[in-house]
Amino acid sequence: MNASGDLQATLDASRKSWVETANAPQCDFPIQNLPFGIFSDARNATRRVGVAIGDCVVDLSALGQAGLLKLSADGKAAGNSVFERDSLNDFIALGQDAWRSVRIQLSALLARDTATPALRDDPALQARALIPLAGATLHLPVEIPGYTDFYSSKEHATNVGSMFRDPKNALLPNWSEMPIGYNGRASSVVVSGTPVRRPNGQLKLPDAERPVFGASRKLDIELETGFIIGRGNALGEPVACEDAESHIFGMVLLNDWSARDIQQWEYVPLGPFNAKTFATTISPWIVTLDALEPFRVAQPAQEPKPLDYLCHAGEHAFDIALEVMLRPRNASQPTTISRTNFRHMYWTMAQQLAHHTVSGCNTRVGDLMGSGTISGPTGDSSGSLLELTWNGQKPLELHGGGTRAFIEDGDELTLAGWCQGNGYRVGFGPCVGEILPAHR
Amino acid sequence: MNASGDLQATLDASRKSWVETANAPQCDFPIQNLPFGIFSDARNATRRVGVAIGDCVVDLSALGQAGLLKLSADGKAAGNSVFERDSLNDFIALGQDAWRSVRIQLSALLARDTATPALRDDPALQARALIPLAGATLHLPVEIPGYTDFYSSKEHATNVGSMFRDPKNALLPNWSEMPIGYNGRASSVVVSGTPVRRPNGQLKLPDAERPVFGASRKLDIELETGFIIGRGNALGEPVACEDAESHIFGMVLLNDWSARDIQQWEYVPLGPFNAKTFATTISPWIVTLDALEPFRVAQPAQEPKPLDYLCHAGEHAFDIALEVMLRPRNASQPTTISRTNFRHMYWTMAQQLAHHTVSGCNTRVGDLMGSGTISGPTGDSSGSLLELTWNGQKPLELHGGGTRAFIEDGDELTLAGWCQGNGYRVGFGPCVGEILPAHR
Repeated sequence: MNASGDLQATLDASRKSWVETANAPQCDFPIQNLPFGIFSDARNATRRVGVAIGDCVVDLSALGQAGLLKLSADGKAAGNSVFERDSLNDFIALGQDAWRSVRIQLSALLARDTATPALRDDPALQARALIPLAGATLHLPVEIPGYTDFYSSKEHATNVGSMFRDPKNALLPNWSEMPIGYNGRASSVVVSGTPVRRPNGQLKLPDAERPVFGASRKLDIELETGFIIGRGNALGEPVACEDAESHIFGMVLLNDWSARDIQQWEYVPLGPFNAKTFATTISPWIVTLDALEPFRVAQPAQEPKPLDYLCHAGEHAFDIALEVMLRPRNASQPTTISRTNFRHMYWTMAQQLAHHTVSGCNTRVGDLMGSGTISGPTGDSSGSLLELTWNGQKPLELHGGGTRAFIEDGDELTLAGWCQGNGYRVGFGPCVGEILPAHR
Repeated sequence: MNASGDLQATLDASRKSWVETANAPQCDFPIQNLPFGIFSDARNATRRVGVAIGDCVVDLSALGQAGLLKLSADGKAAGNSVFERDSLNDFIALGQDAWRSVRIQLSALLARDTATPALRDDPALQARALIPLAGATLHLPVEIPGYTDFYSSKEHATNVGSMFRDPKNALLPNWSEMPIGYNGRASSVVVSGTPVRRPNGQLKLPDAERPVFGASRKLDIELETGFIIGRGNALGEPVACEDAESHIFGMVLLNDWSARDIQQWEYVPLGPFNAKTFATTISPWIVTLDALEPFRVAQPAQEPKPLDYLCHAGEHAFDIALEVMLRPRNASQPTTISRTNFRHMYWTMAQQLAHHTVSGCNTRVGDLMGSGTISGPTGDSSGSLLELTWNGQKPLELHGGGTRAFIEDGDELTLAGWCQGNGYRVGFGPCVGEILPAHR
């Protein structure tokens, strides 16, 4: 079978794994997914590269040591070095051929009907190389040299513009011409599960002459996805829109925590800063663009037609169902507060990257690019409490009683996302954060 | 002599070096300075830590190998490892005691009347450890995990507000309450001498309905300084204003290249992006805060009194003379287009760092924090062509003929900065960049 055929085989909806939990219809990590991450466990505190399958992590350093992984279709065994790292950056830097080849090999090793039964038929190796997810600690999957956040949902930009500027001219003229973006703060990107402390900052109350210092009273989420740069570009050498997807390793869920009161006072004229730099949470597993391929769909029509450097033929959106759950501390169950889909995004990831680099700006392996808040066409498909409660004016009702205008201390927010296949789903795993009270 | 006395001795205006070029009154690198950088040379292409003295670089890896440097006042010899690196980050991460101690030891080794003549009296060691600056290649001194740019000159913010918003309310209400800042793009920070390619982007001409794509026609400098974080803070743990200077390793000159036409069209509502991400140039030598201590002066009076978290007793500005020179390609001499001083800055570096972290945002060793454009009280002390030519309306006349509204291809822009002592100056060395034509 040729390389393209091997890739197609990894996406075959009928392929099952001998890791039986991977075959459950609601499992985020079927054999069609095989997302990459960094983990450690009680037995071995060393951080290393893993791939999620069913309710387990496959330890790629163990497979490498066993001589079961090659770094290219025709290459020699990988050894363990590139998988015994505390980030995926060195593996990603090997290039698309290597990511694709390793994923193809893993699919073959994990398939129920496999021609390479070296792992399936070796219980001792399984004991070393298959770690229960429940006992694993998941870490930030990449070292992030740069974090950029876009603003590419037309519905979100329109909602925010209506609330804070002019409802009649909610969308600013530049918005329809380019994927508006800004530089984020990479240092405070944390992995799912990391508690997030409510920020203090300057709050300007409506009738006050001067701001006061205190804890944010309007703490919010932003439901986003992010993509991870797999191939950088040199300073001064833009990435063409048609070529941009080949620079993307994969995607994560991203919660761009936002303090709306701090933001509103600080953001003119240079954009959000302290309102967002206190934390950004991403999901621990990077779902490769290869695994998302069956869920490629057309992006929304773009009117006016973008300038040439933002044009690409074909379909460049992805059908990714998204949900947000809120669970107050001690609540027995969460409340789903939003359901939306990544396919609604007006600007594509390829257009974002082409715009980001058209000035000559360089990107590096591991760079994180956030989509911007993903809001759908209906009120309950908005990706922020700001929109869902219309700046707190229409609080949400929670299961078991209580309401929420913005996030309260002890609330746990969870983002979920998945592509629905025929009898299986390619999921991201949860992106979770609980809010701790502000420092006094 | 105690440690404080040793530090004072390094700042003694009467101290001279046996490296005689260091004793010239206009030399940027007298024995009172001793700035740190990363260099290589024709003899040895390995990047390593150096300190500038007169017209030479002292090779700290060579001194380490010779057993002449300890990493603390009472410690054992440093060996060479921390000085055989391609960035200063590992050395800086050793902490203030180590930086201070190494600078004190170097001052003693380089002093004309020295009690430690090991280098002065050893011509063979000098041949290994003293490299002529003219033959050295200077590299980016730090790996920069994060770059933040502030906007802390009242005159600059007022000028820009007058031009682009409302002359009667030029300064926005939040400006006087906090050091406004935004996240910059760390990937495109380059060292002095790196050519800078004019960016392409979206330009919205005044009467056009839609933007066009093309090379920026309003390419500009921003005269800034930057400080380098020497001690990071953990996520969720703000740096107190009174303690902030102890987190600063030192300062550089910084040119925040800006494409004004791209900026004006893109910057609402999330701030500048492609207008600035194409390049930021810094000077190669980091002047330590210790070396700047004799030039500490009072910051301008702040009215209204800042909120408590931005208050610090004492003097926190520095008297640093600054100049900008423009030299067209083939011009026999440059034209000095601006003369100003860092002491005019309204918000101090300590206030900037306290504000940056008050939300809980973490910083890391090597982070770069730009001051924002430094404009003084008079028109010819502005730090950008935007202000100097009032958005191109009043072009500058150049030596030898010609005028400039904004930067043209082939122009070389140089920033210079120094603290004037009694018979010597503590300088930064030039921060230079030449503009290459845009890609077509």
